[in-house]
Amino acid sequence: MSEAARWRAEVYVSLRPGVNDPQGLAVRDGLRRLGYDEVEEVRVGRYVQVWLRAPDPETARQRVAQMCEQLLANPVVEQYRFVVEPA
Amino acid sequence: MSEAARWRAEVYVSLRPGVNDPQGLAVRDGLRRLGYDEVEEVRVGRYVQVWLRAPDPETARQRVAQMCEQLLANPVVEQYRFVVEPA
Repeated sequence: MSEAARWRAEVYVSLRPGVNDPQGLAVRDGLRRLGYDEVEEVRVGRYVQVWLRAPDPETARQRVAQMCEQLLANPVVEQYRFVVEPA
Repeated sequence: MSEAARWRAEVYVSLRPGVNDPQGLAVRDGLRRLGYDEVEEVRVGRYVQVWLRAPDPETARQRVAQMCEQLLANPVVEQYRFVVEPA
């Protein structure tokens, strides 16, 4: 197991549609104040990179999905997607 | 100009390599406490979605790059990349 391959997961966590995003509103207003009048909406989420060991990509993906459900995202108000690649 | 097409940018902001990431360390430790011993490192960044109007994708990309430099990222300690697609 200590020789399991190394993987890097890129996890994108965002608020579900309809969930208020005060940080996104603040960024949108900031951009408009800077002259970016073409900006209509901004949503701010998290971009989490996880390096982990796993024997194969399927196992890595299963584990990352579990991490998302348990800690990386709050499934009640957030959605997530991720990709796993060799690190 | 009011008929300019609508675009969605996905911006990924992450700390530059070597910059301390206390939030990433906290997430890594939290995952390990939950039993994810295979996790070696975690880095936490921002995933920003921006909806904007622009006449063409090149203009949209130019404007988003400017937004990143001015407000969405701190180029001193952060790096970013983004994709733009029709919204």
